[in-house]
Amino acid sequence: MKDKLLAFLPILPSVIYVIWTDYWRLFVQRVGFSIAISVLAYFATLRLIPIFADYTLKKGLSGKDLGKKGTAVENNDVPEALGLVCGIVFLISTILSQLMFATNDKQLVIFNSALFSICFMIFLGYIDDTLDLKWRYKLILPTISSLPLLLSYSGSTAMYLPQPLASFLMSDHKLTVLGQLINIFAVVDAEANGKIVELGGWFLLFMGLQAVFCTNAINILAGINGLEAGQGFVIACSLLFFKVYEICSSGTNNIKENELFAILYLLPYIGTSLGLLSYNWYPAKVFVGDTFCYFSGMTFAVIGIHSHFSKTLLMLFIPQILNFLYSVPQLFKLMPCPRHRLPKKLPNVDLLTYSTFPCESSRYRWFKIRSNDTECPNCTILNLFLRWFGPMHERSLTVCILLFQFICSALAFYIRYVLLE
Amino acid sequence: MKDKLLAFLPILPSVIYVIWTDYWRLFVQRVGFSIAISVLAYFATLRLIPIFADYTLKKGLSGKDLGKKGTAVENNDVPEALGLVCGIVFLISTILSQLMFATNDKQLVIFNSALFSICFMIFLGYIDDTLDLKWRYKLILPTISSLPLLLSYSGSTAMYLPQPLASFLMSDHKLTVLGQLINIFAVVDAEANGKIVELGGWFLLFMGLQAVFCTNAINILAGINGLEAGQGFVIACSLLFFKVYEICSSGTNNIKENELFAILYLLPYIGTSLGLLSYNWYPAKVFVGDTFCYFSGMTFAVIGIHSHFSKTLLMLFIPQILNFLYSVPQLFKLMPCPRHRLPKKLPNVDLLTYSTFPCESSRYRWFKIRSNDTECPNCTILNLFLRWFGPMHERSLTVCILLFQFICSALAFYIRYVLLE
Repeated sequence: MKDKLLAFLPILPSVIYVIWTDYWRLFVQRVGFSIAISVLAYFATLRLIPIFADYTLKKGLSGKDLGKKGTAVENNDVPEALGLVCGIVFLISTILSQLMFATNDKQLVIFNSALFSICFMIFLGYIDDTLDLKWRYKLILPTISSLPLLLSYSGSTAMYLPQPLASFLMSDHKLTVLGQLINIFAVVDAEANGKIVELGGWFLLFMGLQAVFCTNAINILAGINGLEAGQGFVIACSLLFFKVYEICSSGTNNIKENELFAILYLLPYIGTSLGLLSYNWYPAKVFVGDTFCYFSGMTFAVIGIHSHFSKTLLMLFIPQILNFLYSVPQLFKLMPCPRHRLPKKLPNVDLLTYSTFPCESSRYRWFKIRSNDTECPNCTILNLFLRWFGPMHERSLTVCILLFQFICSALAFYIRYVLLE
Repeated sequence: MKDKLLAFLPILPSVIYVIWTDYWRLFVQRVGFSIAISVLAYFATLRLIPIFADYTLKKGLSGKDLGKKGTAVENNDVPEALGLVCGIVFLISTILSQLMFATNDKQLVIFNSALFSICFMIFLGYIDDTLDLKWRYKLILPTISSLPLLLSYSGSTAMYLPQPLASFLMSDHKLTVLGQLINIFAVVDAEANGKIVELGGWFLLFMGLQAVFCTNAINILAGINGLEAGQGFVIACSLLFFKVYEICSSGTNNIKENELFAILYLLPYIGTSLGLLSYNWYPAKVFVGDTFCYFSGMTFAVIGIHSHFSKTLLMLFIPQILNFLYSVPQLFKLMPCPRHRLPKKLPNVDLLTYSTFPCESSRYRWFKIRSNDTECPNCTILNLFLRWFGPMHERSLTVCILLFQFICSALAFYIRYVLLE
């Protein structure tokens, strides 16, 4: 492990070089401006959330906190859909960044298409919060809203495979059976010995699906105080760390446009989501709503696409992917799916435990804790954590999941920059 | 008058030429596709409005029809904010047009920034419908949402004056006093003898203000069945007629990009607004909401800006401008302003008459019908029409206003293409 850490040492000189030469000017101008905007965005969010919470509460856009069942505040109305404030403050911040930095048509196309896709997604989330849309709309509309994004994609559509994977496609400069199979749909680059697969349109399809996945993934891993805003915050910070690392380790004083794009979008996101988190943290004074989940998902998808980072992005979503895969049997109605699958509060103590669904049939034996159980834990990683670690406080569960999210980010970093380098 | 009509004759050959040569191919490809999309958009709107009306009704997003007071249906809840459906169908239609036609970065910038501004405005309208925002947000947010639009403006920032007006600025190749005054802020082109004034940044400011004005103008001239969707429809058809006339009269077989842009945005707008109109026409089964007013206003502003048509556009808004100017004393609280200024229903007969506000003070003598009145008609052109033409049926009043809108369009056409040519 110490060896791995030492491997980072060689990049230190270039970090220092980058910071103290031409980069400094660029840093002050752009990143400095963006940091300033993001700090403002943080305070604007803090200021506006109580104002909009009054609006939503007055109009009945509110919900009960299911994790507070049996306590004195069980019947309190908690204002809903406050991700709205985040979204609007974020849009305004990025418009201002764009006014400063987008100078040529190529950049404007990227900024404008990104703005549109995110705006359309926030809009859709808010419609969902106010009208409770059916699932089909939640799948069709993100697909369409990501079309302008894909249309403006200007990066490579090739996939770079590390040697261990490449050897499945080519060995001794000849295509393997799998390689030939893949070669029907895409182009396996023979000169690169299978390390490059040109996916063409399939890559655009992959990115489109990723946009749909991201927007819904955060929405599924949700429901306890501070979890949605918290996971958005952790993912954004990880992405920011990756990008800063890439800029520093590239060892040049020319920052690529796409790295800068990511930073200009991540900083205001971090600012606004932190503002929301301070109201949504246990005990939650506001709920974030689908608005925030969709906004976060699309923002990450946009950054993944325009900063040419979509495969690494997928690794940052490991908890969401695991949660989605684990949920599939219930989501697709292969097993009974109660309306709420949230952990339930234990009576008399301030602890949560896993919620269950009826599973008498032997078909569900894999999901039972003991073979003669008639109730199985609902298939979300929230319930899984509670089953593994025993009942815990709502805040502790959030911290656990966020810690897991952080560990996955570290793992992604290890895979991307150590294993595959 | 006959002379004026004869003046159109010379353009006829070029109309025929344009249609029967290269233009035909372009016509079939682009405009044909756009017409097909718009017909689909019309039917999609027809199909989706009842579905979403159920959603909004279920969630309490509905209102009472004030024009039906005293009738059997007075207490019926009418679903609100159905402009939402128009907006989303319109966005999807234009995304599809964009996929087909936007081929280079310059076009993509225009399409994407237009999409964003319209989407943000629809979003804002919907927030307003669900939360009832304060006036300040309605002025700040459109301003910000039009920034990407202005940033991507690539046309001229000069204003072309007709001779009669130009002579106020320059006479005998010398600047007049007024000309010198204007020359401080802008550049009066001496070579063009005052006919061209280069406004620079002021022109951008003008367009930004126009976007804010358009989005709010339709919202003020509203409130009776079929009026909002109707005026949007009349303005859009007028704009389309102007654009088609320009294409035909330019006499070349190269259609300018900006003319095409306008047509690709106008056709789906006409389709969706017609769909909405058929539900909103007297007796209204749905209300259009601020969503539709903002959506319409921003769409027209976007077309005005990107198809370099903003001054002519202003002439199409004459009824809205007159209504706004007439409303100013009440809007800015210089006079008492009741919460609703809609015409009121006469008891027992199915007719509307003007509503009033208390105006005993002699300060309001200009607004009184008779000098000893204690109540004056509210300052909207709806009430003005009812005062002039006497009580009329709600549907008749809508038809009257739409007719007035149509006459103003004809007047604008006369000024733009006959008087100033």
